[in-house]
Amino acid sequence: MTSTDDDVLHVHPDRLLPADPALRPIARELYDAVKDLPIISPHGHVPPQWLADDVPFADPTSLLITPDHYVNRLLHANGASLADLGVGQKDFTPEQSRRAFRILCENWKIFRGTPMKFWFESELADVFGIELVPSAATADRIYDQIAEAIATPEFRPRALYWTFGIEFIATTDDPADDLRHHQKLAQDPTWEGKVAPTFRPDKYLEPATPAWNGLIDTLGEVSGVDTGTYAGWVAAMENRRAFFKENGAVSSDHSHKDAGAEKLDDAEAERLYARARAGEITPEEGDALRRDFVFQQARMASEDGLVMTLHPAVVRNHHTPTFGTYGADVGGDIPMSVEFARALQPMLSAFGTAPNFQLVLFTIDETVYSRELAPLAGFYPSVYVGAPWWFIDEAEAIKRYRRAITGSAGFTRTSGFIDDTRAFLSIPARHDMNRRLDSGFLAELVADHRLTMDEALDTAHDLVVTQPRKAFKL
Amino acid sequence: MTSTDDDVLHVHPDRLLPADPALRPIARELYDAVKDLPIISPHGHVPPQWLADDVPFADPTSLLITPDHYVNRLLHANGASLADLGVGQKDFTPEQSRRAFRILCENWKIFRGTPMKFWFESELADVFGIELVPSAATADRIYDQIAEAIATPEFRPRALYWTFGIEFIATTDDPADDLRHHQKLAQDPTWEGKVAPTFRPDKYLEPATPAWNGLIDTLGEVSGVDTGTYAGWVAAMENRRAFFKENGAVSSDHSHKDAGAEKLDDAEAERLYARARAGEITPEEGDALRRDFVFQQARMASEDGLVMTLHPAVVRNHHTPTFGTYGADVGGDIPMSVEFARALQPMLSAFGTAPNFQLVLFTIDETVYSRELAPLAGFYPSVYVGAPWWFIDEAEAIKRYRRAITGSAGFTRTSGFIDDTRAFLSIPARHDMNRRLDSGFLAELVADHRLTMDEALDTAHDLVVTQPRKAFKL
Amino acid sequence: MTSTDDDVLHVHPDRLLPADPALRPIARELYDAVKDLPIISPHGHVPPQWLADDVPFADPTSLLITPDHYVNRLLHANGASLADLGVGQKDFTPEQSRRAFRILCENWKIFRGTPMKFWFESELADVFGIELVPSAATADRIYDQIAEAIATPEFRPRALYWTFGIEFIATTDDPADDLRHHQKLAQDPTWEGKVAPTFRPDKYLEPATPAWNGLIDTLGEVSGVDTGTYAGWVAAMENRRAFFKENGAVSSDHSHKDAGAEKLDDAEAERLYARARAGEITPEEGDALRRDFVFQQARMASEDGLVMTLHPAVVRNHHTPTFGTYGADVGGDIPMSVEFARALQPMLSAFGTAPNFQLVLFTIDETVYSRELAPLAGFYPSVYVGAPWWFIDEAEAIKRYRRAITGSAGFTRTSGFIDDTRAFLSIPARHDMNRRLDSGFLAELVADHRLTMDEALDTAHDLVVTQPRKAFKL
Repeated sequence: MTSTDDDVLHVHPDRLLPADPALRPIARELYDAVKDLPIISPHGHVPPQWLADDVPFADPTSLLITPDHYVNRLLHANGASLADLGVGQKDFTPEQSRRAFRILCENWKIFRGTPMKFWFESELADVFGIELVPSAATADRIYDQIAEAIATPEFRPRALYWTFGIEFIATTDDPADDLRHHQKLAQDPTWEGKVAPTFRPDKYLEPATPAWNGLIDTLGEVSGVDTGTYAGWVAAMENRRAFFKENGAVSSDHSHKDAGAEKLDDAEAERLYARARAGEITPEEGDALRRDFVFQQARMASEDGLVMTLHPAVVRNHHTPTFGTYGADVGGDIPMSVEFARALQPMLSAFGTAPNFQLVLFTIDETVYSRELAPLAGFYPSVYVGAPWWFIDEAEAIKRYRRAITGSAGFTRTSGFIDDTRAFLSIPARHDMNRRLDSGFLAELVADHRLTMDEALDTAHDLVVTQPRKAFKL
Repeated sequence: MTSTDDDVLHVHPDRLLPADPALRPIARELYDAVKDLPIISPHGHVPPQWLADDVPFADPTSLLITPDHYVNRLLHANGASLADLGVGQKDFTPEQSRRAFRILCENWKIFRGTPMKFWFESELADVFGIELVPSAATADRIYDQIAEAIATPEFRPRALYWTFGIEFIATTDDPADDLRHHQKLAQDPTWEGKVAPTFRPDKYLEPATPAWNGLIDTLGEVSGVDTGTYAGWVAAMENRRAFFKENGAVSSDHSHKDAGAEKLDDAEAERLYARARAGEITPEEGDALRRDFVFQQARMASEDGLVMTLHPAVVRNHHTPTFGTYGADVGGDIPMSVEFARALQPMLSAFGTAPNFQLVLFTIDETVYSRELAPLAGFYPSVYVGAPWWFIDEAEAIKRYRRAITGSAGFTRTSGFIDDTRAFLSIPARHDMNRRLDSGFLAELVADHRLTMDEALDTAHDLVVTQPRKAFKL
Repeated sequence: MTSTDDDVLHVHPDRLLPADPALRPIARELYDAVKDLPIISPHGHVPPQWLADDVPFADPTSLLITPDHYVNRLLHANGASLADLGVGQKDFTPEQSRRAFRILCENWKIFRGTPMKFWFESELADVFGIELVPSAATADRIYDQIAEAIATPEFRPRALYWTFGIEFIATTDDPADDLRHHQKLAQDPTWEGKVAPTFRPDKYLEPATPAWNGLIDTLGEVSGVDTGTYAGWVAAMENRRAFFKENGAVSSDHSHKDAGAEKLDDAEAERLYARARAGEITPEEGDALRRDFVFQQARMASEDGLVMTLHPAVVRNHHTPTFGTYGADVGGDIPMSVEFARALQPMLSAFGTAPNFQLVLFTIDETVYSRELAPLAGFYPSVYVGAPWWFIDEAEAIKRYRRAITGSAGFTRTSGFIDDTRAFLSIPARHDMNRRLDSGFLAELVADHRLTMDEALDTAHDLVVTQPRKAFKL
């Protein structure tokens, strides 16, 4: 089969820059000034083992489709089964892998207007040098070219780290993790990259869930602290946070169903903890204790200096049968509305001006941008507005983000871009998308004379370099 | 009186296309490709009798003002009384009708920036060929020209059906309706259009309202099923849905104060049903039973295949004195916020991947677009994001709609445009508005290189033809 | 020190007008038609004594920084202490004042993209004729030039009133205020401006707060009405409203944590009132009585004709330690979400069509614009949608405002711009910003042929002149 004109993928150098002739030249100049700056990725989900062991990627489907719930979920909505995409499949054959890739390519039009199209096209063109539009006709050719590429040393994770211009990348890790992959990287004299763990204790903060007691037992074991009491839980957490910090962590990451963080008095905390350890805690008590646990994490953060990131309010595993068959994290989560102003008042009254405390707030509920997040970040020296995240890390929402928050918070109270991804190959495309869109926004401010070009150039640089370093203490 | 320059209505061929010189030529090309495609109208409120009996329209006011609460409510807000506009008036004289039309024309400026201006100007120019700007000076001339036109055979409903290029239109009908107008049309060998009923059972699902018991008695009579028990209610509903389906229905339509749909166990359902039949049900119990009823409708939909449309959360009849004088549906409804993600979880866990189930979700609360509706439609193969609807079926909200949902749901999870109107003459203008605005959005994606022109042309066509056919199983 | 090129402040005549070449010439024509129209400022916080006594401004910091919590809060978020900015400092020395001004200038970049930059640059250039970009290097020069200017008669408040082209300005006043500054102005034959008080009774409507009983005692004294009973409270309020009206007030202003307004029956009102007077009322009872009080204010408004403005839902004094040290109104308030449709139903069912009643609704929660405020104002002849306010009185939010409400409410149901400021020198810049942005929005409607240029010119004029006069009965 040979290429036809229809097959040729054109990835335009000005993509996502504003079309308006009064804006594009300005945006292009701003973008040119930042496009080649290093990537700082302080929040994401790349498995550290990939870099520690420099694991070669197995095949195009397990690299680009199976683990990427952005891709899976929209294919599922358009009729594909998750099983056919490799989700939850232990022995996925090469034929099945090739067939899954065909499903993606045959359904290529469903991604029109989505960020997945931008990311994937950028990956094809910029990472693999493949200039074919995905389709039934091109699926096998693309598959083969990717397969060929990832078999070469240039496409090992460590090589790509440098190819992509990554300066810092954080993973997401369980408090009980031994961080041996991070330690291996730290002890490897041939490795000069920066790969930091992130302390993600969510499951240990949900005392009304069935798994909690087992997790707390494990926490006791790995920390060497008796977790039979609330005070023990606190000490064990401090122990693990210290261990993470020793191993390079700069932040902890938190997501619960609400943003609540409120201290219980010690006796009540011990009482609820005892009930939880006895398996007798009610859901309401569980919420109260969890909010105390979150408050405690903030208190620890104000002492050990780990940056705290918070992104609440998602209905996890919305479709019960899918959860039953495939488990969590397969694209079945649905956002819900969230309230920050009142929920965070106790935490911020306690630590909001503490010198060592920094809190980055993410959301999927865009209504809180202008109403709560920008006002909070525009008052508290500890609070940063995080980037558009998850369902809204796409072009139009990223545009709305700057337009919603800049009036109250300016640029210096924002975290810089967060890719939040486990799709390693998409990291450059995601950062590139954001650099293009921020350049477009700044171009508007220049074109309507809110900023001079010098101010815009300085700000564009800050958004890529200064802000993530400041927000994550790098 | 003669026309002056001020009086001349200019309806520009490029209206509502983006002004940006980088966008307009692209938008125009896209719009030209779809502007003459047939109209598919799967959700609206045109009385079927108009088409069944080919009833001539009586006069300009009863055609264009009295039944149109978009027009009435804004005139009311600006000082007109609903009575003077003919609302609730049994013997409205020709003089009163002319006077009501003058009120509209004298107040023409209040409609600036609203869709009513676009619709009405399009109707004047495109339907009636009247090139006069409404004003005190032109009111009588416009009135007379419309009156003259609607007296001719070309302006009978059946003729307009073809003039407007309608391919399919759905009405909204009571479950107890005998559908004789639809049957008359179906049996008329001279009529080749498609006019389908829509099953709208809201009132029969609200067991705590005063009218409910009488309605359920009627339901029992028309279905021939004893509605003395919950099981009887279910059987009667299945009976009427089957009757509607036999008579061409493709969907059912639902609007309650929340989006809740949750099954009760059978005993509890029977218990609450008995209390409702005895007139003893509390409002809270009524909500619980109503949510079970909605769940049952979804279950029936998964079996009989009628598409389910859902658009909750409006405070009906907000102004009590207006409701007392004029009754419902006179423009006194006010939207409220709504939650979909948790409310729909039981229904979607049960039927979200059922092969025969399709659910179209509409809203007036725009906050749910990016937060809940697009994520739901981007996972569930059954869910479609409906069009901007009611208070937000206007230019700016339609623009926001695509910008809010496309990132998560793309284009293939959307329903296509819904006119939702009883204003028959405005149907072409409403669809035309949407085609212009979708062309403008697609032009942006082309201009910033997210889509090729071929992809945009294909998508523009899909939005007008493919998506409504798919979402409503036409 | 001399100026360098970097120091020169360029304030472009087209700033904030759309950059799009298809829009800017239209926007400029519209803006030119309204930019020099008088300023109507029916809601703000300028102290009346400034104008009554024509008090010279003391120094640049106490004029431009210390009282402006927009400026303070963002400096605080970026590391400045409120004390160093003069907040709550009784004996702030000239050296401290100069140092505070330096803090502002050194941190100038934090204001990029915020309205504070636009306002401040406009003040420097248009009010003081200072063409220096604020920076560490220019701070002292700017300080000195402002200090020199405000020592001259041309910069006294009364002179600036005329320089700014103010036609009407309202202050905000306590119900117990003797309004002597307003009376002094009214009795001054040399003063021809219009300075009206505004009745702001919030604290007197919160019976569960500690200060309430003392305030109600004072209310009894100043009104000469026994406030020992609920009926007495009502009579005392009517008395003070009448006193305000006699002294030129056109409106009352209300802000509570929700928008509730619901009548209690008289016996229940008396019972709760007695409990409140006895210091025994619970928070829940306090809310119920407060909502009755608000309802009573609406009833009084329907009789005495004072326009009612309502802007609920802010978490006051979010950071407890800051409140403890500096008190209220120092920038520590954070907005929260709000519901209008149901909350206002009792009030609007009672007074929504009363001939003398007018209600202007403001919000910081932008979600209510298209969902609730525009639909309410598009039905009720009494309701006006107020301007973007407080955290959202900035360029992007002002753009969103018109785009969110115009479809349902048009232009004639909006209040016109409100500056809501105590920063007297920023009043022209704030109104100018809004005129530029409204011109930009109208230019879009002209460019995509929704409005003719004549319609847009007429509307631009209405928004500056007609609407505020109508909404506030001037």
